[in-house]
Amino acid sequence: MKEVIAVVRMNMMNRTKQALTDAGIDAYFAHEAQGRGVGLANPHVLAGAASGYEEAVALLGERGKLYPKRMVSVVVPDGDVKAVVDAIIEVNQTGKPGDGKIFVLPVADAVRVRTAESGEKSIS
Amino acid sequence: MKEVIAVVRMNMMNRTKQALTDAGIDAYFAHEAQGRGVGLANPHVLAGAASGYEEAVALLGERGKLYPKRMVSVVVPDGDVKAVVDAIIEVNQTGKPGDGKIFVLPVADAVRVRTAESGEKSIS
Amino acid sequence: MKEVIAVVRMNMMNRTKQALTDAGIDAYFAHEAQGRGVGLANPHVLAGAASGYEEAVALLGERGKLYPKRMVSVVVPDGDVKAVVDAIIEVNQTGKPGDGKIFVLPVADAVRVRTAESGEKSIS
Repeated sequence: MKEVIAVVRMNMMNRTKQALTDAGIDAYFAHEAQGRGVGLANPHVLAGAASGYEEAVALLGERGKLYPKRMVSVVVPDGDVKAVVDAIIEVNQTGKPGDGKIFVLPVADAVRVRTAESGEKSIS
Repeated sequence: MKEVIAVVRMNMMNRTKQALTDAGIDAYFAHEAQGRGVGLANPHVLAGAASGYEEAVALLGERGKLYPKRMVSVVVPDGDVKAVVDAIIEVNQTGKPGDGKIFVLPVADAVRVRTAESGEKSIS
Repeated sequence: MKEVIAVVRMNMMNRTKQALTDAGIDAYFAHEAQGRGVGLANPHVLAGAASGYEEAVALLGERGKLYPKRMVSVVVPDGDVKAVVDAIIEVNQTGKPGDGKIFVLPVADAVRVRTAESGEKSIS
């Protein structure tokens, strides 16, 4: 099993939820997050700061700003990871910086509290 | 080491915290989340939507609703995972949909910032 | 790749963000969390509660209090984990209980939504 964690634009959450539903995913968790990605940084400012220019360092502080994002997490069998990732990309890809990131983490086990079932049958 | 992540009903958090304490767990993190599980979906609506009935698809939108949940996370040695999972199940299992899910993720390392200790002694 | 998750004091977040930037980390995610650590527990109360003293058990309830924390998460190549951990420790270590914890989790894959690139090039 794998946990697929997607960090996406706030206004993309409804479409992302629908895409997961369309992909046959019925169980997922979401929460607010703040994030920033490489693409939002200005390389000139980065280079200036690396060279110790105070003005660039100050701008670098600006770069540290975090943007509100939504994080959605779904745990699926290994065989479903690609379909989930593709579904998330399809609705979130605009080609502009800030489209988001997807992380795939190994999951050792899952348990449905209601029945105490574990393993893949707990997530199907 | 493993991270045990439990997504439970909001009103179960105090009991869950107490159960963790009773199980000897003194360090954990919690945050708000929203979730939905398979058990809340109506299979007739699912089938209808799969067949392209617009009314079912609209209801499917309803299904996408997320319910407020609480997420609690604890990192423990492998040998303590079962005790933690059992403790969480014991206080959260009502037998009704929405009891929650537990995920067990591998943890490569942990560090206590105060002492810079790493490994299992950082979490005991 | 690894996910480095740090749970730190709320008032340390700006310094932590700056430290990550200084360490060459440009992409990270943050969210609010609540936490408690072993160091905040009083061993006498623990022992008393274990022996069944009601007063200690009541205090134990107090112990269950969660403190507001900030969680910051960054996904990096394996070779960068030590630098990130060291950077987080350097700005967050006061030597007092509550300095926080760092967890390192294996990451199977990462994807940049904008380009659909996966693997390490998606996080650089």
